[in-house]
Amino acid sequence: MINVGLVGGTGYTGVELLRILVQHPQVNLKVVTSRGEDGTPVSDMFPNLRPFTNITFSVPDVKTLCECDLVFFATPHGVAMEMAPELVKAGVRIVDLGADFRIKDVVEWSKWYGLEHTCPEIVEQAVYGLPEVNREAIKTANVVANPGCYPTAAQLGLLPLIEAGLIEVDGIIADCKSGVSGAGRQAKIGGLLCEASESFSAYGVPGHRHLPEIKQGLQNANKNNAVGLTFVPHLTPMIRGIHATLYAKLKDTSVDLQKVFEARYANEPFVDVMPAGTHPATRNVKGSNFNQIAVHRQQGGDTVIVLSVIDNLVKGAAGQAVQNMNIMFGFAENTGMTQPAMLP
Amino acid sequence: MINVGLVGGTGYTGVELLRILVQHPQVNLKVVTSRGEDGTPVSDMFPNLRPFTNITFSVPDVKTLCECDLVFFATPHGVAMEMAPELVKAGVRIVDLGADFRIKDVVEWSKWYGLEHTCPEIVEQAVYGLPEVNREAIKTANVVANPGCYPTAAQLGLLPLIEAGLIEVDGIIADCKSGVSGAGRQAKIGGLLCEASESFSAYGVPGHRHLPEIKQGLQNANKNNAVGLTFVPHLTPMIRGIHATLYAKLKDTSVDLQKVFEARYANEPFVDVMPAGTHPATRNVKGSNFNQIAVHRQQGGDTVIVLSVIDNLVKGAAGQAVQNMNIMFGFAENTGMTQPAMLP
Amino acid sequence: MINVGLVGGTGYTGVELLRILVQHPQVNLKVVTSRGEDGTPVSDMFPNLRPFTNITFSVPDVKTLCECDLVFFATPHGVAMEMAPELVKAGVRIVDLGADFRIKDVVEWSKWYGLEHTCPEIVEQAVYGLPEVNREAIKTANVVANPGCYPTAAQLGLLPLIEAGLIEVDGIIADCKSGVSGAGRQAKIGGLLCEASESFSAYGVPGHRHLPEIKQGLQNANKNNAVGLTFVPHLTPMIRGIHATLYAKLKDTSVDLQKVFEARYANEPFVDVMPAGTHPATRNVKGSNFNQIAVHRQQGGDTVIVLSVIDNLVKGAAGQAVQNMNIMFGFAENTGMTQPAMLP
Amino acid sequence: MINVGLVGGTGYTGVELLRILVQHPQVNLKVVTSRGEDGTPVSDMFPNLRPFTNITFSVPDVKTLCECDLVFFATPHGVAMEMAPELVKAGVRIVDLGADFRIKDVVEWSKWYGLEHTCPEIVEQAVYGLPEVNREAIKTANVVANPGCYPTAAQLGLLPLIEAGLIEVDGIIADCKSGVSGAGRQAKIGGLLCEASESFSAYGVPGHRHLPEIKQGLQNANKNNAVGLTFVPHLTPMIRGIHATLYAKLKDTSVDLQKVFEARYANEPFVDVMPAGTHPATRNVKGSNFNQIAVHRQQGGDTVIVLSVIDNLVKGAAGQAVQNMNIMFGFAENTGMTQPAMLP
Repeated sequence: MINVGLVGGTGYTGVELLRILVQHPQVNLKVVTSRGEDGTPVSDMFPNLRPFTNITFSVPDVKTLCECDLVFFATPHGVAMEMAPELVKAGVRIVDLGADFRIKDVVEWSKWYGLEHTCPEIVEQAVYGLPEVNREAIKTANVVANPGCYPTAAQLGLLPLIEAGLIEVDGIIADCKSGVSGAGRQAKIGGLLCEASESFSAYGVPGHRHLPEIKQGLQNANKNNAVGLTFVPHLTPMIRGIHATLYAKLKDTSVDLQKVFEARYANEPFVDVMPAGTHPATRNVKGSNFNQIAVHRQQGGDTVIVLSVIDNLVKGAAGQAVQNMNIMFGFAENTGMTQPAMLP
Repeated sequence: MINVGLVGGTGYTGVELLRILVQHPQVNLKVVTSRGEDGTPVSDMFPNLRPFTNITFSVPDVKTLCECDLVFFATPHGVAMEMAPELVKAGVRIVDLGADFRIKDVVEWSKWYGLEHTCPEIVEQAVYGLPEVNREAIKTANVVANPGCYPTAAQLGLLPLIEAGLIEVDGIIADCKSGVSGAGRQAKIGGLLCEASESFSAYGVPGHRHLPEIKQGLQNANKNNAVGLTFVPHLTPMIRGIHATLYAKLKDTSVDLQKVFEARYANEPFVDVMPAGTHPATRNVKGSNFNQIAVHRQQGGDTVIVLSVIDNLVKGAAGQAVQNMNIMFGFAENTGMTQPAMLP
Repeated sequence: MINVGLVGGTGYTGVELLRILVQHPQVNLKVVTSRGEDGTPVSDMFPNLRPFTNITFSVPDVKTLCECDLVFFATPHGVAMEMAPELVKAGVRIVDLGADFRIKDVVEWSKWYGLEHTCPEIVEQAVYGLPEVNREAIKTANVVANPGCYPTAAQLGLLPLIEAGLIEVDGIIADCKSGVSGAGRQAKIGGLLCEASESFSAYGVPGHRHLPEIKQGLQNANKNNAVGLTFVPHLTPMIRGIHATLYAKLKDTSVDLQKVFEARYANEPFVDVMPAGTHPATRNVKGSNFNQIAVHRQQGGDTVIVLSVIDNLVKGAAGQAVQNMNIMFGFAENTGMTQPAMLP
Repeated sequence: MINVGLVGGTGYTGVELLRILVQHPQVNLKVVTSRGEDGTPVSDMFPNLRPFTNITFSVPDVKTLCECDLVFFATPHGVAMEMAPELVKAGVRIVDLGADFRIKDVVEWSKWYGLEHTCPEIVEQAVYGLPEVNREAIKTANVVANPGCYPTAAQLGLLPLIEAGLIEVDGIIADCKSGVSGAGRQAKIGGLLCEASESFSAYGVPGHRHLPEIKQGLQNANKNNAVGLTFVPHLTPMIRGIHATLYAKLKDTSVDLQKVFEARYANEPFVDVMPAGTHPATRNVKGSNFNQIAVHRQQGGDTVIVLSVIDNLVKGAAGQAVQNMNIMFGFAENTGMTQPAMLP
């Protein structure tokens, strides 16, 4: 049993973390912070939690947080980096669901996030929390940078190909589609049901913040050699789910791609390589921490097409954060996440 | 640990039962039947279950079913009554999620369901599986008639008023709204996304099969005196959820209705009486077995308005069935159902 | 050809008015105002209008508005009453889609809208713009108070019964369901897709502003005698549409209700009485100015159930406003609105 | 005024054609056929048409069809080719919304559609009905093969680049997303709201029938030289709309792509080239015949990204069919289609 704090509990990644944590058998939820909602019972804002917790939001307070074994940050970028140094010093471990520690190149980070980084030394020691790549390092990490939602779906779909040197890396295309919860729980007109339902559109085509994150991960897999990536995110009229459709040119069309993927993920508890010829749907993983992947070639061509789906709020955020926590504290990796996805 | 069988595993109540049962710590899922899908892995049809079960559909076979401690029927009406007598004789306990054993008056049942009943003696011994009313009888029941979805939402909202004699019982109105999954997983044009989304309509206004079921329950609560009920179901463009808006004339406007409801359900693990003045939303209970209720009067009038929400597939079907199983076998009532609803 | 101005063009009723007006053969759209969007092309905000108009938003200016034959107000309550007196004095006719002139009793109005009324004399001369009731008066009106969306659906469904004295008027129930566009184009969390989709809930049960408006209309139909009305609005996960389910006790169950409704609306261009036994769906009228109505009794009971559907943005707002304009200026009543509803 | 017949009026392209034709000022709708619904009023099936037409479905009959100036086929493939020869002989002009006359290579056609073609001579004379390419030939065509929905969106987005020789044609990627109405009005489980909403998935990745159609069009634009195309369709949880995201490698990054597109479509009544840097949404064209296009490069790279949106039932089917009819009979090209898209 560990004491856990959550900084930033009013967004969708926050409530999703709470949904998992209130029934996690190894977690004592000690504090949930929100500056704006100080004193409000968490279950007033999220009535699904009424039967599960009486905790109230409180103003973030370093002293209280320092009594935790682990603190999750489910905050906009810029918040975690302000509080992390003190917590780390106090021996509190951190999983940041925001973007503060994901990009190793802090100059690049500043370019995309529009802020100067206040603790590059923590960026350096932070472990990028994709368990399928960094499981060993996560075990002992003080600070885990939980990956973004698109980067999780895209990397899991491309890593087996890049690690095995099977594709041309200069023309990779990641055409990604996300449910609206990816935009967060913010009062903006673009997220209204009347704006976002019954419609489909791309956004951020000139350049989206997850582009450098995906590239960094692919380059690591490519032995630190550059990769050329075009990443186009799209807004899809549904609440949850990411579908990444990934395209790359094969160097050699004789490889058994199905075997490559099955071998790569044979021991992964949350990656499900689907049978050849199938099409994973985002609803297969709705509310669960699974990633489903299928690999295709079209009409015998030399383009590999990978379909990779996750729930953006779970494997793309809160679930992966709990998976990282479980690894950090030596719990079974799926503790608290033993439920099938909700279908229909 | 008990052996459990499921007859009719290809519908939405079937897959919802499977979603709960595959992770229920006291259940060994022994057999899932489907005539049409004999030999197909269950997870081919429901890929959310891939990581959880390797079981395949099989043709229903009484011998195999007789090796179970409990058999669930998630079948259209008329199926359970054919197989129940033999199973009961063999000492197998039954929870029927269909309608075969819900109506005590088999003549009335035949009128609404268009079949002659083949085992009225089992109707007689069957216990109507609304735990909030019949918990004691359920404990020892051989056959539990799991309530319909609308009847669950409507009765839980009206029972406290009727039991306490607080309303005129001759003009009760139940205006109920259901998600589309209530219509089942059947290839019918009316259930297509292009027909049912972005639209709202009533159906069955001349008379719906749940009308006599609700009336029977209310009359039992009314000391077997007749009640006058108008029940109008509506199709709502969403997957899950029932919202019952219930209207009745108060005999006495001085009663503290909030207290009445809170007292009635004080010990119920799955009924959540919301604070006065609030409006429960169906999403508060999506994927969970909870019923949320709020009680209102408008502008000080003499009409009581009760808002009662459930997930039609959980408290309205599969979850209530598992709740009944838990009661029948002496497990904690929420075993296998300890997760909060999925929000958003 | 008339010159038309629109005050408040950035909301959903505003853009719906524009959608109709830009192709109305008798309308020259002279000015569209918005304080916040001064100088922005209207089609930047509403790209569906790109091929149809080059007009830009401008700050509201009485002098320009006075050059119009008709000014529509699609503004929050309180705006029209500030500008109306000057416009009326200048001979400009007004259709207010807001609530400023709907309630004849200004004290009652103030109670519900939280403002003192600044021009009761205009309330007095304003005509309530329900053509099915006030067509003659609308022809010569200077100021038309365009009805609210719920009041349109509810009144059209109840008026034939009340006018003919067929129901007990002390216990009428209007259970109404609206699409989310009824909440307007405002950056509020409650309207987000992730909050409002896949959920259904009531709101405003203690008392909603449309309650006094509906009551006023029903009382007028009841020869100015009081009526008892319970009105419960619900939020439905779709963009457009209102479904009113209306309940009342019949004085005499021998009346042919179908004939009553057909006779009452025989000459109405936008009211479609459906065949007996049918269930209108909101999608039947999506994007059109029609109201569809069906009348039922359940199992021969003495409760009449009326189902009344409209598109809240059209017959419930912009379309009815254009219908009123057409009446005021002697155009055919359906000018500019000759398109069938969009199905699917 | 021309006499028009419709063979196959019960699907979504059928009802969309009817929605346009019943208010088209130059059309007398003479006959609407359906074998299964002979004698049923069209408006019983599609109640949005109640106020607009009294026509009933009738069994297809060549004699009656021969009294038409134009016959639309909104039928599954294989139907039009059976009836076309006789109609053509009788001087009736045809617009086939199905696939029978789209592919010039009938051997290739047979491979994808699983039928032998019964009238290759009509395939030969048929004109592919993409007005932006074949307007002149359409004017005098006896048989117009109305393009598929994906092919319309994909070709309109790619033609300017290929015609001008600006891209490498061996690695084009068309990642396309469609609303569910593209699957037709058929009683199949996959199209149920409970299956298709709140989910996103690819389908037909190994090979979809629109692949050869798109390739044929691109190759024509490429002076009959081969192109390499990967086409992946996806099912999107909404009723209407197609979004094509198109990727190709530029030969020369110095070209002003915006100008190329604006020049190419300067005189097209239904193609709207959006400003540089924007993202068209499918809802901008919902219910209208417009195609909106935006051209992008990401971070100055050498991959051109084209976003192309249409309403699959309008510009992707019924609207384009009416546009073709208007061209064939010398009506203004937008006759009957002068309404803005419905937003929201």
